[in-house]
Amino acid sequence: MLAALKEKVLAANLELKNRNLIIYTWGNVSGIDREKGLVVIKPSGVPYEDLRVEHMVVVDLYGKVVEGNLKPSSDTPTHLYLYQNFPEIGGVVHTHSPWATAWAQAQKGIPCLGTTHADYFYGEVPCTRPLMPAEIKDEYELNTGKVIVERFAGLNYLDFPGVLVANHGPFTWGKDPAAAVHNSVVLEEIAKIAFLTKALDGNALAISQELLDKHYRRKHGAGAYYGQAIT
Amino acid sequence: MLAALKEKVLAANLELKNRNLIIYTWGNVSGIDREKGLVVIKPSGVPYEDLRVEHMVVVDLYGKVVEGNLKPSSDTPTHLYLYQNFPEIGGVVHTHSPWATAWAQAQKGIPCLGTTHADYFYGEVPCTRPLMPAEIKDEYELNTGKVIVERFAGLNYLDFPGVLVANHGPFTWGKDPAAAVHNSVVLEEIAKIAFLTKALDGNALAISQELLDKHYRRKHGAGAYYGQAIT
Amino acid sequence: MLAALKEKVLAANLELKNRNLIIYTWGNVSGIDREKGLVVIKPSGVPYEDLRVEHMVVVDLYGKVVEGNLKPSSDTPTHLYLYQNFPEIGGVVHTHSPWATAWAQAQKGIPCLGTTHADYFYGEVPCTRPLMPAEIKDEYELNTGKVIVERFAGLNYLDFPGVLVANHGPFTWGKDPAAAVHNSVVLEEIAKIAFLTKALDGNALAISQELLDKHYRRKHGAGAYYGQAIT
Amino acid sequence: MLAALKEKVLAANLELKNRNLIIYTWGNVSGIDREKGLVVIKPSGVPYEDLRVEHMVVVDLYGKVVEGNLKPSSDTPTHLYLYQNFPEIGGVVHTHSPWATAWAQAQKGIPCLGTTHADYFYGEVPCTRPLMPAEIKDEYELNTGKVIVERFAGLNYLDFPGVLVANHGPFTWGKDPAAAVHNSVVLEEIAKIAFLTKALDGNALAISQELLDKHYRRKHGAGAYYGQAIT
Repeated sequence: MLAALKEKVLAANLELKNRNLIIYTWGNVSGIDREKGLVVIKPSGVPYEDLRVEHMVVVDLYGKVVEGNLKPSSDTPTHLYLYQNFPEIGGVVHTHSPWATAWAQAQKGIPCLGTTHADYFYGEVPCTRPLMPAEIKDEYELNTGKVIVERFAGLNYLDFPGVLVANHGPFTWGKDPAAAVHNSVVLEEIAKIAFLTKALDGNALAISQELLDKHYRRKHGAGAYYGQAIT
Repeated sequence: MLAALKEKVLAANLELKNRNLIIYTWGNVSGIDREKGLVVIKPSGVPYEDLRVEHMVVVDLYGKVVEGNLKPSSDTPTHLYLYQNFPEIGGVVHTHSPWATAWAQAQKGIPCLGTTHADYFYGEVPCTRPLMPAEIKDEYELNTGKVIVERFAGLNYLDFPGVLVANHGPFTWGKDPAAAVHNSVVLEEIAKIAFLTKALDGNALAISQELLDKHYRRKHGAGAYYGQAIT
Repeated sequence: MLAALKEKVLAANLELKNRNLIIYTWGNVSGIDREKGLVVIKPSGVPYEDLRVEHMVVVDLYGKVVEGNLKPSSDTPTHLYLYQNFPEIGGVVHTHSPWATAWAQAQKGIPCLGTTHADYFYGEVPCTRPLMPAEIKDEYELNTGKVIVERFAGLNYLDFPGVLVANHGPFTWGKDPAAAVHNSVVLEEIAKIAFLTKALDGNALAISQELLDKHYRRKHGAGAYYGQAIT
Repeated sequence: MLAALKEKVLAANLELKNRNLIIYTWGNVSGIDREKGLVVIKPSGVPYEDLRVEHMVVVDLYGKVVEGNLKPSSDTPTHLYLYQNFPEIGGVVHTHSPWATAWAQAQKGIPCLGTTHADYFYGEVPCTRPLMPAEIKDEYELNTGKVIVERFAGLNYLDFPGVLVANHGPFTWGKDPAAAVHNSVVLEEIAKIAFLTKALDGNALAISQELLDKHYRRKHGAGAYYGQAIT
């Protein structure tokens, strides 16, 4: 069942490790089959070095385990809420990568201070509000998804392929699990460069709208001219 | 004698090196056999690349060498005092890992600024007071254990699997040597993320009690739902 | 066509990756054959692990593709403008290496705070002005080259083998592609050391003219006595 | 001639690279045969990956090349001056390792903020004064040695196995080339931890004399009890 997607989700989980974004079991990747309405996700708390394709858990969009002997990631309700509300994404990633997590812990969005950032995010990387006590107490992981979606009111989730959850860490997404991991790696790097920039000049300002448009549009959308034409 | 424990202690020492927490001989791991009341510990000043299982030193809880041709770690009295006072721990680790050591040198506990931290420590990572001149002069390593235990007055050592010794560095513990090393790795990572957070916002506050409870209890205790059920 | 130069450009691109200056496709290296007036450059957006010598693109100094099935790097017009205006350079590199990019994002040149820097740059690493909106909108990559050359009014590009483009990142050059990569690695390292120095003392001053002269002239020009005589 | 010493000097140079203290040719190690009054040193500007034992250069204490086809390191006069004035050292190392170099560029000694430091240096790592213009102009490398020795007036060079040269970088020494490299690695690590400590608390103070004595004397001198007895 969903053999190809399971392979992709496994590979994307292992890539997180290879890219040094996680230690131990501190992250998770999922992927969705939109036609079947099923999500494949990493099991909870299994070390990356032991992960096999048969450990991948299949859940439906309501969180019911459809296949698999292991419990899915404890963050599964967050992933599912994102799939429900961001209909064009195919993969979701959560990590505690240190530079991005530091911004999340400081409850600050990452300002767009340069073209490296503008190549991937069409402006500041958004940071959610902290969850309220009641939102933490019950259905915490679902409510984590809800504050993310709330934060995207007025923002196009395709133009901002990730978010910082206040006091927690980053979630990213993409057209498939590999793209979501790619965006996690990028987010960590731009979080680092932004940190260093702010340390050099606490008043460093976001780049101009023109430079943001130029770089983002160079790589995304109808007028993009970066990379090779898809044939 | 204690062959299995020696293997575990050796493996845990080597894991410290593999995780890049130490250079040269800057760390030590021990493990205890509670039934026999014997502790296995790394010998003093032997390079990690040369460590063999037969180098492991067996001492009793009073520090008497029961087996082994080498001198035990100079920090042995600290380890023994922790085993005596924290009856449910099975392994102890000491390192000079740089981010945690920086907090220790600044004589600051590490505030709980996010969920990464709350997954492992039920609040601020405590920092001891500096030792008094008389405590340094005689029985220094024993007194290092004493200021740690003193610092845990009113704290449950199972909820805080590590400590910073002021002007010195971190000690961690766990149910066995491997778990103690795991906690050293985690402590170094949360020390780094907390440092970066404070650099972004010197006024960043500890997370709410609700979020602390949620994350800590998600992984620890009767209501834990993270990871796979132990069968 | 230009088989030897293609090999050099490929090797220099791969060296960027080996030196950990780039992730994914975030950099590009070119080299020029001055006699033929042709430039070999990395194709746009091709992952480094897939790069083969036959992917290298040959363009003339006006940007016309002379050989190759792939699109050249989107930064090609910047490279070409540098070759046109800096007649003694043989290779150009662009990266988003994090420490150098942070200085670029802060719109600050890197002051010459020590001999490490003075061994390679005869003073502050210059930073360009930001591009104007009109310069961004049309012929952005060409205009990136123009602000670099504008910044070098009164500076000898041979004595400063690199520059920071404001809000963007570093470009470096050298007598051939390998030398340009060497200068990228050096620039990243001196950017890091200068960052750390400024964090220790925000008022740290540039070294004296005498020390700058001594170190730069020890390695460059007629009186150089560093290294082995070229035979 | 001096075959064993050449092997040691080569190995120590390669160890600098393995420990990631240097890039390219940014460092040098030498060793002395006190009986013969001859020094073996790395040749100037030869990449580490190409270094062979036959490249090692033998010089006398006046800098005359006694054996070898290559020019010795340009820093040779500094090494020789140290051997002349510090009669019990057997090896000297110079690097531009980034954390130590940052302290040197800031013209600050590294305060002894913790036991990691006190295990190796009996107090603050000293920093020289900057060289005067006349000292830079003529016999620069010799004068570099002179300001180091000047800085050690009243200090025992055996208790402080390294120094920061203002605006330049660290030199370390030891009983042989390997020990000098060991001290370079340690110096870089304590420079990093001290930097992080000062960033957490700009007013962090040096440790007490008692703690300094305890740790330094635990590893050095007649009362040392760290490590295994030498047999």
